[in-house]
Amino acid sequence: MLTITPIAGIPLIQPGDDLVEIILDALEHNNLTLLDGDILVITSKIISKAEGRQVNLATVQPSQEALQLAGCVEKDARLVELILGESNQVLRSRPGTIIVEHRHGFVCANAGIDHSNVAGEGDQAEEWVLLLPADPEASAHQLRQRLEAHTNVRIGIMIIDSHGRAWRIGTVGMAIGLAGIPGVVDLRGRPDLFGYNLRITQIGAADELAAGASLVMGQAAEGTPVVHVRGFPYPLREGSLAELFRPRQEDLFR
Amino acid sequence: MLTITPIAGIPLIQPGDDLVEIILDALEHNNLTLLDGDILVITSKIISKAEGRQVNLATVQPSQEALQLAGCVEKDARLVELILGESNQVLRSRPGTIIVEHRHGFVCANAGIDHSNVAGEGDQAEEWVLLLPADPEASAHQLRQRLEAHTNVRIGIMIIDSHGRAWRIGTVGMAIGLAGIPGVVDLRGRPDLFGYNLRITQIGAADELAAGASLVMGQAAEGTPVVHVRGFPYPLREGSLAELFRPRQEDLFR
Repeated sequence: MLTITPIAGIPLIQPGDDLVEIILDALEHNNLTLLDGDILVITSKIISKAEGRQVNLATVQPSQEALQLAGCVEKDARLVELILGESNQVLRSRPGTIIVEHRHGFVCANAGIDHSNVAGEGDQAEEWVLLLPADPEASAHQLRQRLEAHTNVRIGIMIIDSHGRAWRIGTVGMAIGLAGIPGVVDLRGRPDLFGYNLRITQIGAADELAAGASLVMGQAAEGTPVVHVRGFPYPLREGSLAELFRPRQEDLFR
Repeated sequence: MLTITPIAGIPLIQPGDDLVEIILDALEHNNLTLLDGDILVITSKIISKAEGRQVNLATVQPSQEALQLAGCVEKDARLVELILGESNQVLRSRPGTIIVEHRHGFVCANAGIDHSNVAGEGDQAEEWVLLLPADPEASAHQLRQRLEAHTNVRIGIMIIDSHGRAWRIGTVGMAIGLAGIPGVVDLRGRPDLFGYNLRITQIGAADELAAGASLVMGQAAEGTPVVHVRGFPYPLREGSLAELFRPRQEDLFR
């Protein structure tokens, strides 16, 4: 059985907050004791906030490139400047949406920059945006190391963000940083029940878990930015997000 | 808490098998009693088998179109004939893969036709393939109606298949038929904690659940083709798969 449990009572995160302390407190208040093989799934939003990734749009000077693209996509040129700064490449654009390869390597809309739930100061609140974590995989590793040191168990940590998809409506949670979890589970060469080779040989296990965990986080509030998972069905190992990146030259949708 | 429980002990499915009887038996053997709001997630493979969607490739006569495409993608022309017959449109192709819009409306590789785990007869076993269910949403509705009649509770039924994605390696479970479950949960207009409108307004809730359920099914065997879900965090309602289809004219990756 896989159980996915939202951790209640995590406060609004401020720049500089110690997430390890906050998570350990919240686990205790939820009467949850981490066991070997457990996984904590954390929304990128609180990592970003703790890291101080808020940007006041008033401080951003858009480039010529940003001004031009902003006209096409009908977005604030300062926001477009930030999106371009966070991206390796623009894949597609249309009014409202810029699909990019993020500098972290994955493809997503608007470089994952978030307008909502960002605290600013007074009347300027709506002028702040939140970038994705500076290095989500490094953040996952740091959290894991410190949490394991405190709890003396071996766990996995995954940082997720909600992404849109080609062809389908609706966002789903996807992995953007892994520590101690496989990105892809490779079953190539394993026989199936009839002794044939399997058609499906590589399972996007981290993304499957990210989606399931995202389901219980919801989006309407920040009340459950951390989710506890027990019963992940594959062995934990040192995985990396890069396992999930389809090489550009093999991608039919670039 | 969301719990996702594989239902152990479901036998290999044969054409004509009564899945309702089989599922009710398995629930009993697993000491699981369905409650209002529970969901059963079922892999398309056993629906197809019960429906007799196996095809002996020796009976397929490839068209000129199939022969030509088969040369390009280095696949058996008879298989390509079946893929084209199950599809509205070919979006992309390359050796080994044909990305299509399935006649059921979703985009997937090779029209979801499965080479593995298909029982044939004697030495011909490897010449059989398995098509997706004839009408997975109708199958979901029938299963739900009969299971509800037997158990006297209100449940949701979802049929899933494992699909590849643009940009990312690894398959994930995705919904291909819904009964009594929302496809998309629409949060448009809801304020977030700071009173702003939400950036993320449409959640692909059915696909998030499909991915989480797929995780515990695995792919290596057919032992767990049915998964029980308790704690789905959104209200059940009459949903439909079509909610999840991005209109062609709004899709940047066609």
